[in-house]
Amino acid sequence: MAKHAVSRRNFMGGMAAAVGYLSTRPTAELWAQGGPAAVAAQRARGPMSAEMYDRMVKISSNENNWGPPESVMKSMNAAWKYANRYGYPDGGIVQAIADHHGVKPENILLGAGSGEILDVVGTTYLMGGKKAIGCDPSYGSVYQHATAIKADSIRVPLRADYSLDTSKMIELANQRASEIGFYYLCNPNNPTGIVVPKDEVKAIVEGLPKDMPILIDEAYHHFVNTDRYETAVPYVLEGRPVIVARTFSKIAALAAMRLGYAVAPAPIIRQMRPFSMGSINVLVKHGGVASLKDTAAQAEVKRKVIDLRTKTTAALNAYGYDTIPSETNFFMVHLGRDVQPVIQAFREKEISVGRPFPPMTQHLRVSIGTAEDMDRFVAAYKQIFPAKSQTNFAAR
Amino acid sequence: MAKHAVSRRNFMGGMAAAVGYLSTRPTAELWAQGGPAAVAAQRARGPMSAEMYDRMVKISSNENNWGPPESVMKSMNAAWKYANRYGYPDGGIVQAIADHHGVKPENILLGAGSGEILDVVGTTYLMGGKKAIGCDPSYGSVYQHATAIKADSIRVPLRADYSLDTSKMIELANQRASEIGFYYLCNPNNPTGIVVPKDEVKAIVEGLPKDMPILIDEAYHHFVNTDRYETAVPYVLEGRPVIVARTFSKIAALAAMRLGYAVAPAPIIRQMRPFSMGSINVLVKHGGVASLKDTAAQAEVKRKVIDLRTKTTAALNAYGYDTIPSETNFFMVHLGRDVQPVIQAFREKEISVGRPFPPMTQHLRVSIGTAEDMDRFVAAYKQIFPAKSQTNFAAR
Repeated sequence: MAKHAVSRRNFMGGMAAAVGYLSTRPTAELWAQGGPAAVAAQRARGPMSAEMYDRMVKISSNENNWGPPESVMKSMNAAWKYANRYGYPDGGIVQAIADHHGVKPENILLGAGSGEILDVVGTTYLMGGKKAIGCDPSYGSVYQHATAIKADSIRVPLRADYSLDTSKMIELANQRASEIGFYYLCNPNNPTGIVVPKDEVKAIVEGLPKDMPILIDEAYHHFVNTDRYETAVPYVLEGRPVIVARTFSKIAALAAMRLGYAVAPAPIIRQMRPFSMGSINVLVKHGGVASLKDTAAQAEVKRKVIDLRTKTTAALNAYGYDTIPSETNFFMVHLGRDVQPVIQAFREKEISVGRPFPPMTQHLRVSIGTAEDMDRFVAAYKQIFPAKSQTNFAAR
Repeated sequence: MAKHAVSRRNFMGGMAAAVGYLSTRPTAELWAQGGPAAVAAQRARGPMSAEMYDRMVKISSNENNWGPPESVMKSMNAAWKYANRYGYPDGGIVQAIADHHGVKPENILLGAGSGEILDVVGTTYLMGGKKAIGCDPSYGSVYQHATAIKADSIRVPLRADYSLDTSKMIELANQRASEIGFYYLCNPNNPTGIVVPKDEVKAIVEGLPKDMPILIDEAYHHFVNTDRYETAVPYVLEGRPVIVARTFSKIAALAAMRLGYAVAPAPIIRQMRPFSMGSINVLVKHGGVASLKDTAAQAEVKRKVIDLRTKTTAALNAYGYDTIPSETNFFMVHLGRDVQPVIQAFREKEISVGRPFPPMTQHLRVSIGTAEDMDRFVAAYKQIFPAKSQTNFAAR
């Protein structure tokens, strides 16, 4: 451990206080800096000083609050010597990802987070006013980007149990095929945390018009603990027009280091590549390779997340509040009232919780942080909300 | 100094050997990882091990061989604690850049290097088969990206003295205005190192069709030492359709950390933003702020570059080889024979020099490295080339 102490200390912020102040910045500018996730985080949080940011319990953005493991910090720090270079040794990140999935390097497109992959799919397949078809609510970035490039989206409401209405989506995708640029699936879905079962993914892949690209965002893949779910990567190997997006921002705890990728058939990768900046910093390339290798660290995060999610939702349920069963590092709780003032109430207690996800405006999305984070969240929840009787709960 | 020792040691690679091996990777994949600069660097270098890469004299890619200064390393290391975050305190990088230029944040678009800015301008203004007009040779990325997105370019040869034929470019831009998406100028130009004088930039800005976007790539701005040159940023303040691209990859030595930006009128920034990933890692945001503040470190790099460029070109001239007068951290020497085998000859001496820049296939581009790098380069040059008589030199 001793030899890693430097990198760990750096991560923990012991070296120096961060400079800077978060002012009320225009949304457009924030978007430029961090994409929709940064905009959403800022909206959820509002302006605050760096000091206050550091002090907040951060359970708003589905981050990994434990931070990158030693192995990853060590690899990133060892790559500093290339900071001023272009064609440096990159640790073999593309080959490492390809090997991880049993595909070829030609099936991989790196992105600055999977957010870049989602945008690149949009620019590649929606230009000229085509539409993305997906569920609502889902991770809004795809729809926001479509609007930004003067394209559009067809959004199918979730079923009453918050699952995706995949049969309706398949039906619409066939009826309106000529309008549609690609089909979007976030699996497990954000913000609900619910998986699309593997048989429904199969029905989608087999039921859509033959060449319609299918973007499957598997950002939360690593937290899933049910065999009703399977990754869609095997469909890529079959040559289906499936684009699987993955990220190092969630279980790998590298959100601010920006690394994600697409796995897709080579012809699709070739179509997307010109719209990808593919401009990944050297540190996270090395960190990504180390992260793929450190399966023990990821298993430990998964175990802790599931344990803390189970405990937290049980506490809320016992207190009389329903939660949506989640397979991710976040969950939704039904508040029975509008979420916006609740977000503010948590903020006053120095807890940053999830933004609103219309039309689910009476649900709060809560990310799984450390045990201490979750204790503080549950305590604050009990200050903000009264206990509900089982009668109220059942009548919701 | 003592408190900065960690970050400096990290940069110098003391912590651990880098892993990985550079194999002969397909160009498309390399592009995805590092853009055209990585492709070019790989082409110039060919496959090599990480060990060999570390050992090479690297004067092929106009990098800053001294690496980032202490102040920048310290700021970047202090930001590790945000590695797992989205909406973290970013040091105020956009405001810092805006202040640096006397513009507003709405006039700034961050990019993962200025390479992203060039690509975003291409996607924004060339889609549907429009053309970029620029000189030839210039930094090829703009033309390569145009081809990749099925657009095109109009390339005007340099004058006999290697200066840009700006009057011809203005004439063509007016004649073929309906075909043209934007006008491209690299100032100082790469690979020649020659500046476009300020009166010619003025003639361009005033002589083009009124709304034609003008992309001015000022990647090497910080090395210029002549008052014949001026930045084009004041035209942005005038509201002209000028997009100035700047980078932290050159004098700031942060190429692999990926940070650049555009300065442009707000309506142009708004048009470009949806095609920008704007997905910049947290470390270089903090490093960029520190870099803008450390004017002494930049002045020192500029001084060293000019001194070493003067000495190196004088040595070559005295040996009978003509060089193109440069205002950058690189220069071209006229070899009097084809450059490709010469690149290979240098490589055998563990010196990585610039790639070919057709049609200037008898010129070699040499970046300015450290004093030791330049000594090794001159010694190798004298082994590869015979001394030329003044007669040969004059007859070239």
